[in-house]
Amino acid sequence: MKAIASAPAKIILAGEHFVVYGEPAIVMAIDCYAKVSVKDRNDNVIHIASNLGFSGSFKGNRFQPDHGGLGAHKILEPIRIASQTALKELKEESGLNIVIKSEIPVAAGLGSSGALAVATVAAVGKFFGVNFTKEKIVNLSFEAERFVHGKPSGIDQAISTNGGIIVYKKNQGITPIKVKKKIPLIIGNTGELRSTGDLVKAVKIKRDRFPKIIDPLIKTAGHLTTKAIKTLKSGDLTKFGELMNINHGLLSAIGVSNKTLDNFVHVAIEAGALGAKLTGAGGGGCMIALSPLKKRKKIAKAIKNAGGTPIISSKVDEGVKSWIQK
Amino acid sequence: MKAIASAPAKIILAGEHFVVYGEPAIVMAIDCYAKVSVKDRNDNVIHIASNLGFSGSFKGNRFQPDHGGLGAHKILEPIRIASQTALKELKEESGLNIVIKSEIPVAAGLGSSGALAVATVAAVGKFFGVNFTKEKIVNLSFEAERFVHGKPSGIDQAISTNGGIIVYKKNQGITPIKVKKKIPLIIGNTGELRSTGDLVKAVKIKRDRFPKIIDPLIKTAGHLTTKAIKTLKSGDLTKFGELMNINHGLLSAIGVSNKTLDNFVHVAIEAGALGAKLTGAGGGGCMIALSPLKKRKKIAKAIKNAGGTPIISSKVDEGVKSWIQK
Repeated sequence: MKAIASAPAKIILAGEHFVVYGEPAIVMAIDCYAKVSVKDRNDNVIHIASNLGFSGSFKGNRFQPDHGGLGAHKILEPIRIASQTALKELKEESGLNIVIKSEIPVAAGLGSSGALAVATVAAVGKFFGVNFTKEKIVNLSFEAERFVHGKPSGIDQAISTNGGIIVYKKNQGITPIKVKKKIPLIIGNTGELRSTGDLVKAVKIKRDRFPKIIDPLIKTAGHLTTKAIKTLKSGDLTKFGELMNINHGLLSAIGVSNKTLDNFVHVAIEAGALGAKLTGAGGGGCMIALSPLKKRKKIAKAIKNAGGTPIISSKVDEGVKSWIQK
Repeated sequence: MKAIASAPAKIILAGEHFVVYGEPAIVMAIDCYAKVSVKDRNDNVIHIASNLGFSGSFKGNRFQPDHGGLGAHKILEPIRIASQTALKELKEESGLNIVIKSEIPVAAGLGSSGALAVATVAAVGKFFGVNFTKEKIVNLSFEAERFVHGKPSGIDQAISTNGGIIVYKKNQGITPIKVKKKIPLIIGNTGELRSTGDLVKAVKIKRDRFPKIIDPLIKTAGHLTTKAIKTLKSGDLTKFGELMNINHGLLSAIGVSNKTLDNFVHVAIEAGALGAKLTGAGGGGCMIALSPLKKRKKIAKAIKNAGGTPIISSKVDEGVKSWIQK
């Protein structure tokens, strides 16, 4: 027998970067999943195999790669941390065979590592007969995210655990909001890798150089996100699309868009999107286009023709789930 | 003998669109010229020939095209208005042969019609032995600009007449500012025609829909232009370039950029521009890149490779000038 858990990826609908300066951000779980299966072993080895081509064994802190060489450590270590944090919570001392099957592009701002950590914690709990509470899953996956991100906001674990849409504000934490509409998106992955930390730093430098411009711009972005929350609740997707376009411009103004993202945004709108914006840190990574259901294929094709990898996607209201497979 | 006058084109360095809502704009004369030559005729016909392929005769208000069909009327009528306004001021009743040689792309936001009106007025004056004052030239070219733009701000005639750099603010008029640096630019013409009026209207609609977002955004743009004025005076072109990039993002946020403009902005920066932005109404027309002198060819080539027409250009401190040719 084995335990399996799956957890959704996330996108940021509004407010990225400005959230660092105390403005709200809107985060949504999408139907793109990381799946983790867990079973025990007779030894105390944690063996992890990922569909990304990395696998290896952890004996205590020592890592032995099977595939992917020593680069595998960086990829698999957060899974080890998540599984061992869960084992410790359960007061279990077993070895584990962990198999990862993730649909979520890595390092693209879609919360791949958060979803993996959450699914790992939930699967380990399930295997040993425990359904961790959502709060517990969020907390137990924190250490793994700290390994990946340094100072994680906690937002990725929260959305992968809870699903749906949440509003995050620094020092005020997380507030789920109810949105009835489906929120159909096309995600456009540029495939361009970027460092979130570097982009956050670049914005800070710009703000330090031009406080009289960037500070009111950040406030403006805050007003936009507040309006976007109301608009989402009302279900007016046309208006929400317009707000996405303005939001993308504000992100361009602080210097975090790039040529590819701007191009994908324009081709998506030309193909019928209600609005489009980069999502996450920018400088590469992904953009999202709000798509009328009938235009999804056309928009996806436009992004593909522009050199991107489109993912047809929607809000998912359920977060992590786990089950036993005999 | 004939009289010749030449007047420079203009670009907007900062503040377009936001100027409609009372914020300042910075306008600069560039070394790209409209040249008009004038001599008298024995009849009372005004014949106008333009290097754009239009020519025709005005007898009173009746127009007879030679080239360009009836479409020539719209192009040549403002020249007729400018010349007859000048004749009236001079209390002359002669017919005129007017020949236009303009380097300024038409309907691209570079103030082609303003420069033509100014040069026409100055040339007509010169022919009849009068050096109009600058103030007089601005006033006499107003009627022609009203024909073209409906409600002109007066800024295009002012900059073509005076040269240099001016700051314009609604209800406060025009203030020349002294800038020692050369301000080397590459202008990238998209060749995409757009209606300034439609774009101004679209921004107004956005503001009416989202006043709590667009109003502070406009104020932010005002702070930016104020900072840009100080930065220009100080001669810090690196900083001015950064402000151009932020300005372009704010213009994107109000929806007046487009795919081509964004692309030109990115390729110019990749090729070494200190900053880049759309200039004028947007939605097509032109962008400008602030270019270190050594990078001018590279940036011009990048814009050309991206499908644009580059114009290598700089600030010019002298405005309209006129002379007699025997």
